[in-house]
Amino acid sequence: MKIKVVESVLKANDAVASENRRRLDAAGVLAINLMSAPGSGKTTLLEKTIPALAPVRCAVLVGDLQTTRDAERLGKCAADVVQINTGRGCHLTATQVAEGLASLDLNGISFLFIENVGNMVCPAGVDLGEHVRVALLSTPEGDDKVAKYPTLFQPADAVLLTKIDLLGALDYDKRKVYEDLSRINTRAVLIELSPKAGAGMERWLAWLRQQRGERT
Amino acid sequence: MKIKVVESVLKANDAVASENRRRLDAAGVLAINLMSAPGSGKTTLLEKTIPALAPVRCAVLVGDLQTTRDAERLGKCAADVVQINTGRGCHLTATQVAEGLASLDLNGISFLFIENVGNMVCPAGVDLGEHVRVALLSTPEGDDKVAKYPTLFQPADAVLLTKIDLLGALDYDKRKVYEDLSRINTRAVLIELSPKAGAGMERWLAWLRQQRGERT
Repeated sequence: MKIKVVESVLKANDAVASENRRRLDAAGVLAINLMSAPGSGKTTLLEKTIPALAPVRCAVLVGDLQTTRDAERLGKCAADVVQINTGRGCHLTATQVAEGLASLDLNGISFLFIENVGNMVCPAGVDLGEHVRVALLSTPEGDDKVAKYPTLFQPADAVLLTKIDLLGALDYDKRKVYEDLSRINTRAVLIELSPKAGAGMERWLAWLRQQRGERT
Repeated sequence: MKIKVVESVLKANDAVASENRRRLDAAGVLAINLMSAPGSGKTTLLEKTIPALAPVRCAVLVGDLQTTRDAERLGKCAADVVQINTGRGCHLTATQVAEGLASLDLNGISFLFIENVGNMVCPAGVDLGEHVRVALLSTPEGDDKVAKYPTLFQPADAVLLTKIDLLGALDYDKRKVYEDLSRINTRAVLIELSPKAGAGMERWLAWLRQQRGERT
């Protein structure tokens, strides 16, 4: 009984996600679903990415349980931002994204970044209508997280290893991350980044531009 | 309809949680539910806490989606450890804890640490039968997390601000954490810690011993 309820909720979500994707395709927008644990640096990454992509225009949908802090931060650089407060919801849903899209002016937008709720478990496997999935992993979270949260990293198109400027202060073995990822996902690129220190940004920006070229 | 299903699941969970608590009380064991984002340092904290409490004996139930890495780490110091793999489950349930308790020898155990799945959303509000709730927050996650994830921090008996040895490398305002916490929870103690550097451990150990004295 319970499983049937969950299945029908997921099916309904997927139908809305497909409609979101059609809408984004029609507008020529590449949508990127950013997923990670809380505090891995999703908002900071966008604060550095969006100005670097200019004059190309970006919009953001940002999900959080509470507060509009991330939207306030991103409102300074993005062409348009909508904050989605999920209350107790541990991930964004396709319906929430559809409502966010209804509030956004997609005219002239090239990239839509969807910043999911900070959570390594629940956002995985919930289609929002995005074109690419990006999983972030920050170095202070430890070098064991790809093996411990495979459902997030297995379907990712790119894995960003963030806060590499902190590596010197940590007991961290990067090889473990590469090895664990290669066991579950040979397709994703792994990009080492520190948006704060400016490291790795060129590779990330080139990857984003390439995705847009291939998929829209 | 959907809400009824969820409510009945939660009620069933709470009944099992109450039974867990009765069982722990009968054995004179204080149970501590440790909750946080992935990689905030729950396992490292236990690796330092358990030997420091000796000759008092501790057991651990550790939840993860996959792998037995945490149990392997903790098996070196705890009297007994059971790993619970949740698959896609984003938090431990009272039933999983009941099954874990059935595998543990509680004889002579003073503290049972329940290391929940790394997640700032889903473990909150799910009673496992614990006596005290401890929420961890690591400094590299950022100083905005108490406001953004209030459901985790509001019911906590203690909030541990971990990895304070990294503060020098971060742009972090501790006052924000104290202010945000004071708005939603005036009961919890806030302890600044670095288990790795040994900072703050005496206060944490004293708090644990005090809880056991008062509650068992």
